[in-house]
Amino acid sequence: MFDLTNYLNTKQQAVNAALRALFLEIKPYPTPLVPAMHYSVEAGGKRLRPILCIAAAEAVGGSEQDVMPAACALELIHTYSLVHDDLPSMDNDDYRRGKPSCHRAFDEATAILAGDALLTAAFELLASTGQQQSNDQGKWLEVIYIIARAAGCEGMVQGQMMDLCSEGKSIIPEQLKTLHRLKTGALIEASLKVGALLGRGSAEEIAALEAYGRYIGLAFQLTDDILNIEGKPETLGKPVGSDKLKKKATSISVMGLEDARMHAVKVVDLAVKELRIFGKNGEALAAIARYVIERNR
Amino acid sequence: MFDLTNYLNTKQQAVNAALRALFLEIKPYPTPLVPAMHYSVEAGGKRLRPILCIAAAEAVGGSEQDVMPAACALELIHTYSLVHDDLPSMDNDDYRRGKPSCHRAFDEATAILAGDALLTAAFELLASTGQQQSNDQGKWLEVIYIIARAAGCEGMVQGQMMDLCSEGKSIIPEQLKTLHRLKTGALIEASLKVGALLGRGSAEEIAALEAYGRYIGLAFQLTDDILNIEGKPETLGKPVGSDKLKKKATSISVMGLEDARMHAVKVVDLAVKELRIFGKNGEALAAIARYVIERNR
Repeated sequence: MFDLTNYLNTKQQAVNAALRALFLEIKPYPTPLVPAMHYSVEAGGKRLRPILCIAAAEAVGGSEQDVMPAACALELIHTYSLVHDDLPSMDNDDYRRGKPSCHRAFDEATAILAGDALLTAAFELLASTGQQQSNDQGKWLEVIYIIARAAGCEGMVQGQMMDLCSEGKSIIPEQLKTLHRLKTGALIEASLKVGALLGRGSAEEIAALEAYGRYIGLAFQLTDDILNIEGKPETLGKPVGSDKLKKKATSISVMGLEDARMHAVKVVDLAVKELRIFGKNGEALAAIARYVIERNR
Repeated sequence: MFDLTNYLNTKQQAVNAALRALFLEIKPYPTPLVPAMHYSVEAGGKRLRPILCIAAAEAVGGSEQDVMPAACALELIHTYSLVHDDLPSMDNDDYRRGKPSCHRAFDEATAILAGDALLTAAFELLASTGQQQSNDQGKWLEVIYIIARAAGCEGMVQGQMMDLCSEGKSIIPEQLKTLHRLKTGALIEASLKVGALLGRGSAEEIAALEAYGRYIGLAFQLTDDILNIEGKPETLGKPVGSDKLKKKATSISVMGLEDARMHAVKVVDLAVKELRIFGKNGEALAAIARYVIERNR
């Protein structure tokens, strides 16, 4: 039986150590900018994207070390997106992971700039890593390209824009699927693809992990929507019911709670099926897929 | 006599055409995100950074074509920085280049996301260009690294944070120098370095163009501060006197109008001296250096 808790803890610690090391290298200035970036990164996320990236590399026979800078870049981008999403003019969330959100702990201007700087730092890290790997520079350029595409106006940022535009409107399931695929799915899918690529997976392996990523991205969003209704504020670290309050289009508003739950189970099954070609090497990813819908935060 | 007006117009048109072509490639979604990005990019800037990048490449014997994607990426990043700087929680400027600023023409959330997407698009463009140049991938990774460093928390974003922190405070000339070097200087310097690098300049040439960039970045900021007092709103496209109203630390508040003017002339002379090694190939950059302090917008 695969020990997921131990796997997640070990990887989280490795990712946290690598992120901490990054911050030690930043030249300090007497402003709250870097403290605000650091605050948001340290706020204790699940590190899902970096762990998926590492697990994908390991599934194809690569190592944690191969992909750690990419894993950190993904987490920096995820963190920036949360900082900006929480802003008053966006989702207006005062809490994130049980702590005041960045614009509450600092102020709005600092939060905007901290998000900008986190996004930029991700690309700086990827480029500086790529420069040092003289045999793999083309691969690192591809990694930068994949991550930028997933994060930008044909990916995550477009998804957030659609999410804001959907407030108070009724949308059809097809539109919600696009919204989720862009807002959450794109960066999760990129995490797996980048891990598989840097781990030197074959084309077939990369494609399988991309498909896995697509499914669990969807499962992740469905579960997020369910937790926004059924979760406990003390475990979630934020109030529940906020989607309904803001009249957001969610899986629940479109397909209802029961269908959302069934759909989440179904896509996790599909995700796990994609892992067959990896045999025992796919164990961690299979366990993560099940965890994605069973988590309570 | 070098015809600067013609040079600037020709290069502006080339940059604008390249930027327009980029937008044609973006997949449209029914949200204001891409229109807001496009609006801000089309708002008619001077295209100073891309032109400096191209002129640097030409000074070392390279071509406009070699560097156009980098030139466009620099302009996308400059544009994102303006969109975010104009936000209510930052400089709260309603006008930019005579048109409503992005958050006025759209709304705050859209402006934040449009800025995010412009920044991300810059890195996507650089990475996709680098991937296509199989002999030069290391160079493009270096370009991404240089631009990210110049734009991030040890460059432009830190400068903007310092600028906000300086409001209402008296700061010493040394602090103002750091503020300006980060806020305006870093990206201008990067424009020249990247142009020189992609144009295949020697180490000596790259260093000379970097130094030139440092000087004209300073001249540019000094002139901006002077224009904020002496400029005409109708040519500037925005109200004058806003720095004073916001109690911003500027060259004028620190050294006074006359000293700022003299200092600008002095640094332009120093910039032009750096161009000696280029002979006739440095003509355009010399003319641009003089234009930087003689401009009225």
